[in-house]
Amino acid sequence: MERKPGPTLRVVPEGDTRERMICPDCGFVQYDNPKIVVGSVVRSEGRILMCRRAISPRKGFWTLPAGYLELNETAMDGAKREAWEEARAQIAIDALIAVYNIPRISQVQLIWRAVLLVPEFEPGPESLEVKLFGWDEIPWDELAFPSVRWALRHAAEIGERAEFATRGNPEGEIGDY
Amino acid sequence: MERKPGPTLRVVPEGDTRERMICPDCGFVQYDNPKIVVGSVVRSEGRILMCRRAISPRKGFWTLPAGYLELNETAMDGAKREAWEEARAQIAIDALIAVYNIPRISQVQLIWRAVLLVPEFEPGPESLEVKLFGWDEIPWDELAFPSVRWALRHAAEIGERAEFATRGNPEGEIGDY
Repeated sequence: MERKPGPTLRVVPEGDTRERMICPDCGFVQYDNPKIVVGSVVRSEGRILMCRRAISPRKGFWTLPAGYLELNETAMDGAKREAWEEARAQIAIDALIAVYNIPRISQVQLIWRAVLLVPEFEPGPESLEVKLFGWDEIPWDELAFPSVRWALRHAAEIGERAEFATRGNPEGEIGDY
Repeated sequence: MERKPGPTLRVVPEGDTRERMICPDCGFVQYDNPKIVVGSVVRSEGRILMCRRAISPRKGFWTLPAGYLELNETAMDGAKREAWEEARAQIAIDALIAVYNIPRISQVQLIWRAVLLVPEFEPGPESLEVKLFGWDEIPWDELAFPSVRWALRHAAEIGERAEFATRGNPEGEIGDY
């Protein structure tokens, strides 16, 4: 059996207060950090853009265009990139709807309100299907993640307002199914 | 000369689209991600809590209680922890003031509005001094980072309002000195 490469030992390094992953081959200390997900609720004439996932986890379920922020990218640029990669959609971002925390998987999600700039879109490599849904057409029973439901509800509450309190996790919810 | 351990080669892994750091010893691919800084503007009877830094970078300069979010921590819990670690301050958080981006160093800052719960504080190990400043007493010429100035100005604009547009970087500013 081949041993997994990289930092595989859990150790508190000298002078530190928390366990970090260390590579047994070379002693490299990996300072692992929470990850930032950036996404958007993209509106077009009262409807919302959603993507059916072509990849795991939750392949076949519906989600909002969202993904991991890359190095040297702003959170708004990341959300625009994800809308392009997953839905070939060109969007403009206008406000932050919510900051959601999924501490179990060390994830912080920044979800923006956006509009579709041109009425064109199609599935990118990570989507099976991309579609605009009216509020009554949203596939509530086929959403990929709890935070997709949170973001849709919060976006509906906020509507077109310019000034509102940024939302967080609904009371008592931590992103588990 | 001893070679630096860990992922030191810059390579585009198979099936990926971006360069990642790879360990030449074991082939481990390090997916490096942007880092989340959480901090707060802590008010107490109209004054704001600030810390004089005991560590690099910007040792001796004034900052807000802030630092890197840890794994399995929510962004609000992280801001509370930092206020305790740097200023031995117990705080309650009530709203998100701003999301600042410093893409040069792949940093996203979440800055919260908070109140001091008990009128006690003292320097933690990373602070030389902790002090409450009235608006006219803030040491503007001795601030540690541009984003400290942004957060103070945005907090003053927003005041006690419950509903407001979350702030971002001031126009044209990217966090350089």
